[in-house]
Amino acid sequence: MSVSTSNSTSISVQQYSAPLVAELIANAPALGCAVSTHESGATIVDAGIQVPGGLEAGRIIAEICMGGLGSVALQHVPQFAHWPLSVVVTAKQPVIACLGSQYAGWALSHEKFFSLGSGPARAIAQREEVFKEINYRDQGTQTVLVLETDKIPPLEVIEKVARDTGLAANKLTFILTPTRSLAGSLQVTARVLEVALHKCHTLHFDLNAIVDGYGVAPIPAPSPDFIVGMGRTNDAILFGGFVQLFVNTDDAAAEQLATQLPSSASKDYGRPFAEVFKAVNMDFYQIDPMLFSPAKVSVTNLKSGRTFFAGQFNEVLLNQSFGG
Amino acid sequence: MSVSTSNSTSISVQQYSAPLVAELIANAPALGCAVSTHESGATIVDAGIQVPGGLEAGRIIAEICMGGLGSVALQHVPQFAHWPLSVVVTAKQPVIACLGSQYAGWALSHEKFFSLGSGPARAIAQREEVFKEINYRDQGTQTVLVLETDKIPPLEVIEKVARDTGLAANKLTFILTPTRSLAGSLQVTARVLEVALHKCHTLHFDLNAIVDGYGVAPIPAPSPDFIVGMGRTNDAILFGGFVQLFVNTDDAAAEQLATQLPSSASKDYGRPFAEVFKAVNMDFYQIDPMLFSPAKVSVTNLKSGRTFFAGQFNEVLLNQSFGG
Amino acid sequence: MSVSTSNSTSISVQQYSAPLVAELIANAPALGCAVSTHESGATIVDAGIQVPGGLEAGRIIAEICMGGLGSVALQHVPQFAHWPLSVVVTAKQPVIACLGSQYAGWALSHEKFFSLGSGPARAIAQREEVFKEINYRDQGTQTVLVLETDKIPPLEVIEKVARDTGLAANKLTFILTPTRSLAGSLQVTARVLEVALHKCHTLHFDLNAIVDGYGVAPIPAPSPDFIVGMGRTNDAILFGGFVQLFVNTDDAAAEQLATQLPSSASKDYGRPFAEVFKAVNMDFYQIDPMLFSPAKVSVTNLKSGRTFFAGQFNEVLLNQSFGG
Repeated sequence: MSVSTSNSTSISVQQYSAPLVAELIANAPALGCAVSTHESGATIVDAGIQVPGGLEAGRIIAEICMGGLGSVALQHVPQFAHWPLSVVVTAKQPVIACLGSQYAGWALSHEKFFSLGSGPARAIAQREEVFKEINYRDQGTQTVLVLETDKIPPLEVIEKVARDTGLAANKLTFILTPTRSLAGSLQVTARVLEVALHKCHTLHFDLNAIVDGYGVAPIPAPSPDFIVGMGRTNDAILFGGFVQLFVNTDDAAAEQLATQLPSSASKDYGRPFAEVFKAVNMDFYQIDPMLFSPAKVSVTNLKSGRTFFAGQFNEVLLNQSFGG
Repeated sequence: MSVSTSNSTSISVQQYSAPLVAELIANAPALGCAVSTHESGATIVDAGIQVPGGLEAGRIIAEICMGGLGSVALQHVPQFAHWPLSVVVTAKQPVIACLGSQYAGWALSHEKFFSLGSGPARAIAQREEVFKEINYRDQGTQTVLVLETDKIPPLEVIEKVARDTGLAANKLTFILTPTRSLAGSLQVTARVLEVALHKCHTLHFDLNAIVDGYGVAPIPAPSPDFIVGMGRTNDAILFGGFVQLFVNTDDAAAEQLATQLPSSASKDYGRPFAEVFKAVNMDFYQIDPMLFSPAKVSVTNLKSGRTFFAGQFNEVLLNQSFGG
Repeated sequence: MSVSTSNSTSISVQQYSAPLVAELIANAPALGCAVSTHESGATIVDAGIQVPGGLEAGRIIAEICMGGLGSVALQHVPQFAHWPLSVVVTAKQPVIACLGSQYAGWALSHEKFFSLGSGPARAIAQREEVFKEINYRDQGTQTVLVLETDKIPPLEVIEKVARDTGLAANKLTFILTPTRSLAGSLQVTARVLEVALHKCHTLHFDLNAIVDGYGVAPIPAPSPDFIVGMGRTNDAILFGGFVQLFVNTDDAAAEQLATQLPSSASKDYGRPFAEVFKAVNMDFYQIDPMLFSPAKVSVTNLKSGRTFFAGQFNEVLLNQSFGG
C-alpha cells in the first residue's frame, strides 16, 4: 500500500496550490500583504517586509507551502497557560505535502542573499535528493516558491529558479515571509508535521509506510531579533509541538520510531534553540539533526492497531523562549 | 416551532451533499480513495479497502453521511492525555442531518454480504419507520449511500437500492468505508451527535422539540481486528463523547432527558464495548439500547434558559479500549 | 506601518460580506431562518423571532457583522467544565472588521422601536465618530445591517437607513437576531475581539498600532428573559473571554494596555452583568465603560517581541451567570 509512489503522478501540488496563490494575491490589501512585479517579471508577494503580513496571510501561505494538500487551522488550545493560539495541521498525503512541497530544502543564494525555498516549485525543479526517495515529481505552466527572508531576491536567484523549473520568470511567484512578521512566524510553526516527517527520513524510517498524520503547535510572538524569533519558531515545535503519525509497519519499528522521534531524544535537547544555535556559532550543521522534532508524539501502527507514545511538553522552556 | 416538519420539504440532503460527493471523487487519489464502476453501472468509491482512505477522506464522507447539512471538523482537544485528535460535529437541522441521513439504519444484505446504509439515499428510499416520525422525505435524480464494509456490494444489493430509490444503478454512488481504515474509524466516531439524537428517539423524547446541538469525540486508532476496531469507535462515544442539545420543552422533560441520555445511565455500562459485544455472542439486539450514547451531556432548554448536566468521561476505560 | 489608513480604500466590508449574505438567504430554511420582503421593499432575514435561528445561522451572521473580514469558528474548548462550546474569532484587518463593521454603534429608533445596528451599512452611512478615527469609509450598490431585536423594524427606521446610506430600501437587507435565539446569543458572544478593540479606543490607545488579534469566548445558553440573556452574552466575555492583540508600539504602552484591558480592571467588575445592569436601573450609560472587555488578555508588542499578560478567567461567576 504505497501511497506516495502509486498515486504521485496524479497529485499535483502545483495545481492544488494555485487557487490559494490567487486568493492571497486577490486579497493582498486585506491580508496585510503587497504584490509587485520584480525586474525579472516575476510576481513578488511581500508578506511582512514593508507591510504587516498578518496571521491569516501566514495561514494561507502555510497551505501554499503544503502544495494545497494541507489544512492549517488557527485553534484556541488551552494546553499552555500563556500560549493558547495554535496551528493545527492536517494533510491529504502528508509525505507529498510536507516533504514534496513544504520542506524548506532548496538552498538559494547569490552574494549576500541566502534563503531556503519551500513550496511547489521544489517539486518541479527536482534539485534535492529527497524527491528520489519519495519518488515524486510535479510539473506546471507556472509555479510558486516561499522564501523565509526579509529581502527581495536578486535577479540571479530568480533566474536560477526559472532555469531549474524550466519556466519563464513571469510565470513565477515568490512569497517573502520574514520571521519577524506574524505571517512568517505562523508559517514556520505550521511545519510541525513536516519536521516530524523529515525526522522520519533522517531516521531512515520507510516513508512509504506513512499513511497519515497531524500536528499542532503554539504560535510564538515574533521578534524583531532574527535569532530570537527563529529560536521561538523552533521551540514552538521542540517544546510545544505534538504529532500523531499513522503508519503501516511492524510494532517493533513503530515503537522504535516513537521512541526516537521526540526532540527530547536528541543530545542537544534542554535549552532554548537560540542558545543552542549561539553555542555552535550559528552553524546549523553542528546541531544534532535529531533535535528538529516535536516535543511529544503518538505513532499508531495500522497493521496491529497499537499506538506508541513518547516525549513530553516542556512548558518551562517554552515560556522561557517565548517570553511568557 | 417545529423545525423538521415545517421546513422539511425545502431542505434536500441529496442536494446539499452532492458537491461533497463530487469533491470526494475529483480528489480521490489525494484522499487515498479509488473510484471505479460497478458491473451494475453504479459508481464505487473505495475509502479503505484496496487503498488507505485517510483522515480527510473520512471527514468528507462524514459530511456526506450528514446529507451536507453537517460540519465535521478535526480539532486538537487536550481533554484526554493520549487522544487529543477529535471530531467536532455541528449541523444545520441536526434531526434531519443525523436521523434523516447519517443514521446507519438501512439494513442491506444478500447471502454473506451484510451492511448498514447511511446517507441521503435513505431519505429517498423511505424504508425505515423513523422517516414517518420526523416527517422527512427527499428526492433527486441521483443519490449516494455510505456502507461500513470491507467488501464490494453484490449486484443484488445495488439493484435493491436502485429499486427502492427509483433510480437507475448508474445514478447511484456507493462509498465503502471499512472500520479498519482511518476514514472508516473517523466517520463512525463522527456519529456522536447522531447517537445522542437516536437515543432521544429511543427515549420517546419529542424530536420536533430539538432545535440544535453539537458533539465531540476523540478519534480512535483503527484496528485490523473488526471487533476491536468497532469496539473502539463505540467507546470513543460511550466514554469520550460529549453532546450539548438545545431543546424547546419544559424543565422537567429537559432534566429527565439529561439524566437518561449519558451512556452511564445504561445497565450495560462499565466495560469496553468489545467485551459487552462478546458477552452477548455478538448479537447486537441483546445489548441495552440505552448504552448507545455519549459519556457526558448538556441539555439546554430554550424555553426557560436552564441547562441540565449529566454523565462523565471515563478516561480509564477509553485508554483500555484504545490501547493508550 | 499604518494598516487601517493606508489600505482602507481598497478593502470593502460590503464587498467581502455580500457572498455571506447570499449564502444566508439561499440556505435560510436549513439555517432556521426566514426571508421576507418588508413593506418598504427591504429584505428581512428573521434569525430567531418566528423561526429558531440556530448556531450555524449565528456563525454566518457574526461573519457578516465583521464585514466578511472575520472568521468565526465553533470550537470545543475544554477550558470551563460546563461550557466547552466556544467561538474563536480571527480577522483580516481586525480594526476595520470589528470597529468599522461589527461594533453595534448605530442607534436606530422610532417610537417604541430601538436597536443598535451592526455591519457594513455602518461604514457606508458614516453616522458615527469612530469612522473618522479609523479613517475608514465604504461604498456599494447594496448593503446589510444586523439588528439585535425581536421586532420587525418600522418603515421609518428603514427609510432612515436608506437615506443615510444613499441606497433605495430594496437594496437593503436587515438581519434580525433576538438575544433569546441561539443565533443572537452566538453573534453577540462573537464580539469578544471587537469588545477588546473598542476598549482600546476608550483607553485612547492608538488604533493604527493594532496589527492583528484573535479572541475566544464560551457560548452561553440563551434565555427567554431579555436581561438574563443579555447579561450572559456580556458575562461570556467579561468572565470567560480571552483576547491576544499584536501591536506596534513601545513596551510601556503595550504593558499599560495589557494592565488596563481586562474586565477586572473596572470598578464595576465582580458580579454577573444582569445584576450590574439592574443596579443602575438599566441605564447603560451609568456603567463603567471599562467593564466591557475580555477576562484575560495577552498584548504582544511586535516592535520588541515582548508579550504582556493580564487578567484571569472567573469560572465561578461564569457558572452563576450561565446557570451552570
